[in-house]
Amino acid sequence: MATGKINVSVENIFPLIKKFLYSDHEIFLRELVSNATDATLKLKHLTSIGEAKVEYGNPMIEIKVDKEGKKIHVIDQGIGMTEDEVKKYINELAFSGAEEFLNKYEDGAKESGIIGHFGLGFYSAFMVADQVEINTKSFKEDAEAVHWSCDGSPNFTLEPGSRQERGTEIILHIAEDSTEFLEDSRISQLLNKYNKFMPIPIKFGTKTETLPKPEDAKEDDPAPTQEVDNIINNPNPAWTKQPADLEEKDYKEFYRELYPMQFEEPLFNIHLNVDYPFNLTGILYFPKLTNDLNVQKDRIQLYQNQVFVTDNVEGIVPEFLTMLRGVIDSPDIPLNVSRSYLQADGAVKKISSYITRKVADKLNSLFKNNREEFEQKWNDIKIVIEYGMLSEDKFFEKADKFALYPTVDGTYYTFEELQEKIKENQTDKDDKLVVLYASDKVAQHSYIEAAKAKGYEVLLMDSPIIAHLMQKLETSKEKLSFARVDADHLDNLIKKEDAQISKLSDEEKETLKKNLEEVITDKSYTVQLEAMDSDASPFIITEPEFMRRMKEMQQTGGGGMFAMGSMPDMYNLIVNTNHPLVGEILNTKTAKKRERLINQSIDLARLSKGLLKGEELTNFIKRSYDMVK
Amino acid sequence: MATGKINVSVENIFPLIKKFLYSDHEIFLRELVSNATDATLKLKHLTSIGEAKVEYGNPMIEIKVDKEGKKIHVIDQGIGMTEDEVKKYINELAFSGAEEFLNKYEDGAKESGIIGHFGLGFYSAFMVADQVEINTKSFKEDAEAVHWSCDGSPNFTLEPGSRQERGTEIILHIAEDSTEFLEDSRISQLLNKYNKFMPIPIKFGTKTETLPKPEDAKEDDPAPTQEVDNIINNPNPAWTKQPADLEEKDYKEFYRELYPMQFEEPLFNIHLNVDYPFNLTGILYFPKLTNDLNVQKDRIQLYQNQVFVTDNVEGIVPEFLTMLRGVIDSPDIPLNVSRSYLQADGAVKKISSYITRKVADKLNSLFKNNREEFEQKWNDIKIVIEYGMLSEDKFFEKADKFALYPTVDGTYYTFEELQEKIKENQTDKDDKLVVLYASDKVAQHSYIEAAKAKGYEVLLMDSPIIAHLMQKLETSKEKLSFARVDADHLDNLIKKEDAQISKLSDEEKETLKKNLEEVITDKSYTVQLEAMDSDASPFIITEPEFMRRMKEMQQTGGGGMFAMGSMPDMYNLIVNTNHPLVGEILNTKTAKKRERLINQSIDLARLSKGLLKGEELTNFIKRSYDMVK
Repeated sequence: MATGKINVSVENIFPLIKKFLYSDHEIFLRELVSNATDATLKLKHLTSIGEAKVEYGNPMIEIKVDKEGKKIHVIDQGIGMTEDEVKKYINELAFSGAEEFLNKYEDGAKESGIIGHFGLGFYSAFMVADQVEINTKSFKEDAEAVHWSCDGSPNFTLEPGSRQERGTEIILHIAEDSTEFLEDSRISQLLNKYNKFMPIPIKFGTKTETLPKPEDAKEDDPAPTQEVDNIINNPNPAWTKQPADLEEKDYKEFYRELYPMQFEEPLFNIHLNVDYPFNLTGILYFPKLTNDLNVQKDRIQLYQNQVFVTDNVEGIVPEFLTMLRGVIDSPDIPLNVSRSYLQADGAVKKISSYITRKVADKLNSLFKNNREEFEQKWNDIKIVIEYGMLSEDKFFEKADKFALYPTVDGTYYTFEELQEKIKENQTDKDDKLVVLYASDKVAQHSYIEAAKAKGYEVLLMDSPIIAHLMQKLETSKEKLSFARVDADHLDNLIKKEDAQISKLSDEEKETLKKNLEEVITDKSYTVQLEAMDSDASPFIITEPEFMRRMKEMQQTGGGGMFAMGSMPDMYNLIVNTNHPLVGEILNTKTAKKRERLINQSIDLARLSKGLLKGEELTNFIKRSYDMVK
Repeated sequence: MATGKINVSVENIFPLIKKFLYSDHEIFLRELVSNATDATLKLKHLTSIGEAKVEYGNPMIEIKVDKEGKKIHVIDQGIGMTEDEVKKYINELAFSGAEEFLNKYEDGAKESGIIGHFGLGFYSAFMVADQVEINTKSFKEDAEAVHWSCDGSPNFTLEPGSRQERGTEIILHIAEDSTEFLEDSRISQLLNKYNKFMPIPIKFGTKTETLPKPEDAKEDDPAPTQEVDNIINNPNPAWTKQPADLEEKDYKEFYRELYPMQFEEPLFNIHLNVDYPFNLTGILYFPKLTNDLNVQKDRIQLYQNQVFVTDNVEGIVPEFLTMLRGVIDSPDIPLNVSRSYLQADGAVKKISSYITRKVADKLNSLFKNNREEFEQKWNDIKIVIEYGMLSEDKFFEKADKFALYPTVDGTYYTFEELQEKIKENQTDKDDKLVVLYASDKVAQHSYIEAAKAKGYEVLLMDSPIIAHLMQKLETSKEKLSFARVDADHLDNLIKKEDAQISKLSDEEKETLKKNLEEVITDKSYTVQLEAMDSDASPFIITEPEFMRRMKEMQQTGGGGMFAMGSMPDMYNLIVNTNHPLVGEILNTKTAKKRERLINQSIDLARLSKGLLKGEELTNFIKRSYDMVK
């Protein structure tokens, strides 16, 4: 048996890196700026513990684009490298310097926020450059400057350098297929995407600042200006601070920093801050969701130690919370793993349930401490809460205490309050509580009025997923059912012991029914005679709850009933045998006149339910203009 | 100056591969099956040119999952490897064997379809396995079997093996964090996703097949069964064949193979087949798009030499065609590059415009050869064509010849035909052609009828992006404007020389206007007196075209007018001074009676435009029930 070591042919590693290291080449800048930040934070740490005898000062990182020379420079004022360190960290591919540093200085280094995750980052330069140079000078006393250069062949040269200050400059000679990165606008875009909140100031060019006029200036004198460094990042973003140090306006300002194209203010925020059993900071915002075209664009952003990683937080944040906005920063979330692995990962599971709990707690405290404001915001946040109640049982338990059910008149009840309010009047003879609701105040106006006339409360339930939530409430609570106000006539929706007495005899009813069915030939209407109050409508069209709700549930996903969507619509035509108009129809002997009465009445009932349309409506209007005269 | 070679530390390469080679670990199986396919196709090529003196036979690839032993086996009957070849191809990392083979055998090898793109694939095994074994025996005469094993440390052992047949077996000892891949269902899923159309049969387990009953069997005897290999792939998918060898039903069958969850048949297909200046094969399908929940799920799939790569074809296929379904197979599309690079790539640009041209040609030939069928399918394909006309000027030029404009009565015109048909009657006094349209046959019924009564053609234009397309047509053709039938009254929409004479004197008109404005206090209605036919409607509500269209365009994206969406709706109330009812209003002296006449008339006009809702509608209905009696 022979043994040996797999031999890595370096000539073939460079193409490998170029092709596979990251699928997105633009990442090179994030990697180089991360390294520069890292080098600066290391120096800060070493000076703070007295290991580096230099002035830390106010170091920054500078990015320069030389379009003509086809070069990008990334310059830092960090620890720099000695010749030996270049040999060790640069010439030995895949030797993760950050990891070694972390092991050596342990906890302190961790706290100082050294990134260290992207140990391979330097080589990503070769994804966009065909030659890379390093000019570096270590912070160490008497260190000599070093110049390194490599064309990716992978032969390098190493010689004494000319750099005067401590720190490192990386020079990328951009390759032909990557000239897009020589555009200032492209670099700005990348810095803004990946480095906007990194902890060391990053300079990209200069900008003109207007100064106050000197006191002795004349009125027409232009205000003096000066060129200042253009710092593209905010090194101390809100989420890295303690909640106690932030005011409401700081959260709002940070929201605007995160999403400059959002003109609406967020409704409220949730500051995440935990360091055991995992490390996580962040701020989540509840946006105003209604009619917002940027829903898909402005998403929660995931950072690792202030470096932007992705805005796809699927698997990390529970699905119902992906509609929120904001930032999550955690070094504990594994990257570059499959989504299915991510979802099975223990740490990620804990993070996801921590976030869910914090959101529920925040909502609960808003509800308890400022109910009025909570009610005002309800319409903007309900979709998130209702979706959460449907998809996460733990969230359902908590939210059941603060989820609101508004009536058509704008009163907001919790479920418990609602129950208390309606149980006397809306419990039917089988001891079941019947909750009446409308999905559209305007379209169902006449039905709502009829229910209110009986003293019933009518909820306004108009979220797209409300049918699913009602189903869930009906199955998780006992003796409860929801019915839309136009699902049947009210005496049938909430059946009481006392039945109305019909003014018509059984014989008269039979004649009436025959008369009606002669005129109504449309098979989708089932005629139903009911003894109701004489001042209720003479004709009402209703649509049974079960069928309608199943169809709605199918439209919003799930539901199971397969072919339900293609079933025809079925209606009941309820005829109030106690209404005078119905009596008149019965007593009209001329068939033609009777037909006209019935047709006009049914048209009005259909109009009330929104079913009279097109040619039928045009004809109805013509007929009615004639009647006006 | 020192020079040197970057030194790659192997110990650090394995973690690199594990973490970065592919962001999705599941890819390992695609890679190993690709290698196995490759090894088999190489043998086929060598036997065909007489370089291998063995029987090619009917080789297959077998996948076995040993859940208890925590192992996955991938076994092929291909060329196998000698000890020297293992040393060369396996022990030397990143030495792309396929490339060398391709260089040696050039064109012949390309034609035989060797994959060769995934030269690094073998190492992806270490993403999911903590130990990998190879049992292999070369096809070469007197070749010895070899056994190789490596725990990723990267130390390996190499020794004589026990494999009897030619070919290679890879054994993966699955790591703790990857046990998901020991589930049969997961492996099935992966094979189905990546390997469904690879060119060598792939066996995964067995299945039971029912055999015909022997002739002497009794009626009650169960039909005999046998266990047969479960082949999971179709090695000869439709797109690899010549169009001449395929019938309509073959294309439909392949669609079902591609999208087993699609129950609707595709409308038609486009077979792509080009080998210069780039290599591309594929079949695109126009699906029935209406009300389809799978729009986002069942997308165009991109293959390279029958290996599934992705179903994200953004950048490769023009955006308006991403709504189509089907397969594109091309070795010339660069992978693992940024989207912006992809869009700038010359080959990709050519591919994209080739696809656009083929689609336009297919549509044109359908239109020419079978206009009736084309018209029937129009509603299902129009969104793609209209979007294409908006976004690609070259497509607009071609589609302008076959894009259809249906009337509300179901006649389909091309633009040229429409122009011919209406130019006499619908050219206004400024020589402008006015195309009338409705967006909703039912809601705009009375307006449509009025236009038809004047002999005008009314188009039905109801796609979501139609406002943008009309804008484009108006600017690209001369003296043309579109107007919705309810944008104004007809004499204003198409202004002719001859004006109607009003029955009312100027004085009467003034009185009438005063009477009307006393009753109509709603600021969103502007009263406008017009002399129209006496049998036209007495009252009409119209909504000016420009404002409405700007709002619609804003809702469907783009448009520019920033705050347009939040502008209030503005209507004109057109009063026909020649209608008897209007005369009656003028002559009614009692203010109360006049008010009632006006109110009922306006309610009817609003009903006709769909503006009478909620409480107003309920009151109207109550009033009307009283009038029925």
